[in-house]
Amino acid sequence: MAQGTKGVALSRRQLLRLIGVAGGSAVMYQAMTSLGFAAESTFTGVPALGPAPRGASVLVLGAGIAGMVAALELRNAGYRVQVLEFNDRPGGRVWTLRGGDRYTELGGATQDCGFAPGQYINPGPWRLPHHHHGILGYCRRLGVTLENFVQVNHNALLHDPVAFNGKPQRLRAIKADYQGQVAELLAKATRGGALDEPVTAQDQEILLASLQWWGALDRDYAYRPCFESSDRRGYDKDPGGGPGGAPVFSAPIKPADVLNSGLWGFLPLGELHDMQSTLMQPVGGMDAIARAFGRELGDSIRYRSKVLDIRQDEDGVTATYEDTGAPGIRQSARADWCVCTIPLSILGQIPMNVGRPMADAISAVPYTGSTKVGLQFNRRFWEEDDHIYGGISYTTQPIGTIGYPSHGYQSPGKSVLLGAYVWGHDADRFNAMSPAQRVAQAVEQGGRLHPQYRDEFDNGIAVSWHRVPGAMGCFAMWTEALREQHYANLCAFDGRIVLAGEHASYQPAWQEGAVNSALDAITRLHQRALASGGKA
Amino acid sequence: MAQGTKGVALSRRQLLRLIGVAGGSAVMYQAMTSLGFAAESTFTGVPALGPAPRGASVLVLGAGIAGMVAALELRNAGYRVQVLEFNDRPGGRVWTLRGGDRYTELGGATQDCGFAPGQYINPGPWRLPHHHHGILGYCRRLGVTLENFVQVNHNALLHDPVAFNGKPQRLRAIKADYQGQVAELLAKATRGGALDEPVTAQDQEILLASLQWWGALDRDYAYRPCFESSDRRGYDKDPGGGPGGAPVFSAPIKPADVLNSGLWGFLPLGELHDMQSTLMQPVGGMDAIARAFGRELGDSIRYRSKVLDIRQDEDGVTATYEDTGAPGIRQSARADWCVCTIPLSILGQIPMNVGRPMADAISAVPYTGSTKVGLQFNRRFWEEDDHIYGGISYTTQPIGTIGYPSHGYQSPGKSVLLGAYVWGHDADRFNAMSPAQRVAQAVEQGGRLHPQYRDEFDNGIAVSWHRVPGAMGCFAMWTEALREQHYANLCAFDGRIVLAGEHASYQPAWQEGAVNSALDAITRLHQRALASGGKA
Repeated sequence: MAQGTKGVALSRRQLLRLIGVAGGSAVMYQAMTSLGFAAESTFTGVPALGPAPRGASVLVLGAGIAGMVAALELRNAGYRVQVLEFNDRPGGRVWTLRGGDRYTELGGATQDCGFAPGQYINPGPWRLPHHHHGILGYCRRLGVTLENFVQVNHNALLHDPVAFNGKPQRLRAIKADYQGQVAELLAKATRGGALDEPVTAQDQEILLASLQWWGALDRDYAYRPCFESSDRRGYDKDPGGGPGGAPVFSAPIKPADVLNSGLWGFLPLGELHDMQSTLMQPVGGMDAIARAFGRELGDSIRYRSKVLDIRQDEDGVTATYEDTGAPGIRQSARADWCVCTIPLSILGQIPMNVGRPMADAISAVPYTGSTKVGLQFNRRFWEEDDHIYGGISYTTQPIGTIGYPSHGYQSPGKSVLLGAYVWGHDADRFNAMSPAQRVAQAVEQGGRLHPQYRDEFDNGIAVSWHRVPGAMGCFAMWTEALREQHYANLCAFDGRIVLAGEHASYQPAWQEGAVNSALDAITRLHQRALASGGKA
Repeated sequence: MAQGTKGVALSRRQLLRLIGVAGGSAVMYQAMTSLGFAAESTFTGVPALGPAPRGASVLVLGAGIAGMVAALELRNAGYRVQVLEFNDRPGGRVWTLRGGDRYTELGGATQDCGFAPGQYINPGPWRLPHHHHGILGYCRRLGVTLENFVQVNHNALLHDPVAFNGKPQRLRAIKADYQGQVAELLAKATRGGALDEPVTAQDQEILLASLQWWGALDRDYAYRPCFESSDRRGYDKDPGGGPGGAPVFSAPIKPADVLNSGLWGFLPLGELHDMQSTLMQPVGGMDAIARAFGRELGDSIRYRSKVLDIRQDEDGVTATYEDTGAPGIRQSARADWCVCTIPLSILGQIPMNVGRPMADAISAVPYTGSTKVGLQFNRRFWEEDDHIYGGISYTTQPIGTIGYPSHGYQSPGKSVLLGAYVWGHDADRFNAMSPAQRVAQAVEQGGRLHPQYRDEFDNGIAVSWHRVPGAMGCFAMWTEALREQHYANLCAFDGRIVLAGEHASYQPAWQEGAVNSALDAITRLHQRALASGGKA
């Protein structure tokens, strides 16, 4: 099979990327942590702070999730709280774009979102793992309605421009064939005596039975065209009704082609803890969470407030700021304590009198870039033609991901999908493009998975996180070395100032990190406030 | 470890059931087909029948999915159509029970459903696979709103009374440990040279890289407590926020204990084609589909009509029936042709002048039994306490399944879950119990997974399919031998009568089988009607 051989030879280059990801725990820990994968929750309920010292006040900088959690709980404990927020909306990176929204990125490029009513994209977080108890708890308390977010769709596509000559494969086929062939190989080794040392004879018998069932092997422990394998990887002709209803089984891909395609690299993504089912999303867009917090906090939040300077003394903290609608007019806010949730990428540019350990930590942690592109199409061809309802297709092209909406199935009319979710060096290149170029790239690359793109594309919008005002990056990109050197210093109180946010957590990128960080920070703040004798 | 050893010894009995399921393709095909697993769709759009012969008429028996699909398409093609339905509602086995519903089973036991407003259970089908294009197409045409149905929940429980001393395990842990240990064993065999023959050296290198990533192995190809494994199986202490945010890794279960637990037997269930993500459900209950068809067909359907006799002659077919509200008064309906969708379990008891091949087929196919129990609790403790949102927990106890609602997450107030989905001999035993006993069994057995059952149980309702009037069984239990002998005869026209329904398909139990069977049957009916010269 000449084509197969060619595919094998060329796809080895692609494979190196995947082997790199999987090549050793240290590298992997770093890579995964950077991608926000290493993130569960230790949330065990909101801490009972008890009453605040009489008259005590807190200045919260930033009305993202961390800032709003801190403000809400401190207010409820009796603190006087003021929040300064750069944007004209609550949520920070928790953000939803809809038709009619205008967005101007750093550099000045402005996009007007042309989505149809009810359509949206979440440029920031877009899913809620079931074990992120903190943020889910706030959804419950604040009345945010949740629905399912589909991560793994067996009918979605896996694509590499070289593997299988660029023809996308169904996830189910790659998954079934990889597992089946692994099971067959292990069954062969077991029966050949290769496991006689590590596995008892009795356990070998059970192992074989389990491999047969789990790997869809036949009675001879072979993974071959039959009912068992077709009922995992799909049929050539599906079972049907009436006299001609019998199915036709399909043939697995050759083991060497499965291995060399590298597409197995996408299989474990839904098994990483933060991507494991069940995942959820707020109905109507992730900013439902932000708006719920915003409603609750009311005019405790001052929007359009750009912090220019943060200065503490023995008695309190003063932030100087200007209204972004009236630049040049300096105003100030003062309180006994300050919870600063401004992303480090921004905070590093704001004068603040903290000691060297915290200052070094703030400047040490880089922020990862990422680009998301929302594409609106005239119809849900991915459902109508391709039978893909929600979930994610993956490609080794720079766009990385095509995320289909997990809601509104079979709705007529225009619909939006996530047309790109770009990481790493690819994100740097997307960052350098104009918004229109990013959208064009998403349409071109995505069209290799879905030829319908050509006829059905309507409009798009692109958010490149290094160009988002007030964020200048996606999330704090910790490494093990950085953690060791700076994490404790970043989290420790400096006088009357404490930092909070996903960057001050082991759950980078996730709202849950912001929640846990904020709750930890205010717990310590409260202890200090009490210890300082209740001074107002 | 005495306890572990004891567990190993005793769980071997449990294991035999699983090995039995996996032990050979023929057995497996039969078992899986019986459970309705072997069922995809060949639906490629509704057949264009073209205009009916002038004045041609069809009598449809049964207003389940097959009958209503047939009636709808035949009516649209211009046939005069009348449908006779036993129940006082459309849908047949597509059925939803809500608070206020009264249900009397064969034998006379009556249950009044005490569910709270908005709560429901689907005693029949409860999920729609994404590849069941036929029924999904009707949902679209008839405006049935769909939402996600969660099948696999990594945080759900796997339970066996003996394994792990009866302590339920999280699905994620069993899955991660089984896959990790399989990967470790295969990596060991590969590196030990056991695969030198079947796998080239180059491919072995890729295989090892893939096993490392897929199986969450460390750099030495070991599956052990570390970031990689914990990020699949869960942490002992989750990552968190602030200074103490570092996670604590968890320790995998011993390989022999994983194998001997038998709990690996539940892992592939979400990988069988009909259970693969994405699955859907109609918002508010499965009967939304039935009611949409019913609305469309209006008074073409005569409800409460019990068919007593089916008689064909050279010119047409006459069904004699009585109104179940006025038994003893015989009425009749007549048409040129008859599409009979009455379940074989019932049809076998109705006199009908068909030839021996069809008559033999009708009486040859047994109907499987199954019991579903809906349990209402005072609160969603499975979400609040156990963080299980939707999906299924499995137990080797007779109840088999606990299915959590895939919708209404975090809603306050009472909520209903599927407390039992009983099969096989266990279903026979449940069938023999009173409804109250079935509910009590579900509460007792389910309480071993969720101790909260004791305090939170409110009320329940139980449907045992062999006692459902008008169905007397769950679905046609084909075997390969039965198919060979009777399937063609069951599907073939006998004079002016053709059968349709899930029993006349290779998709037993599924609505999709009913759709495909009906469309196939009416296509052949139309050809015959045209060939017969348009005789009315």
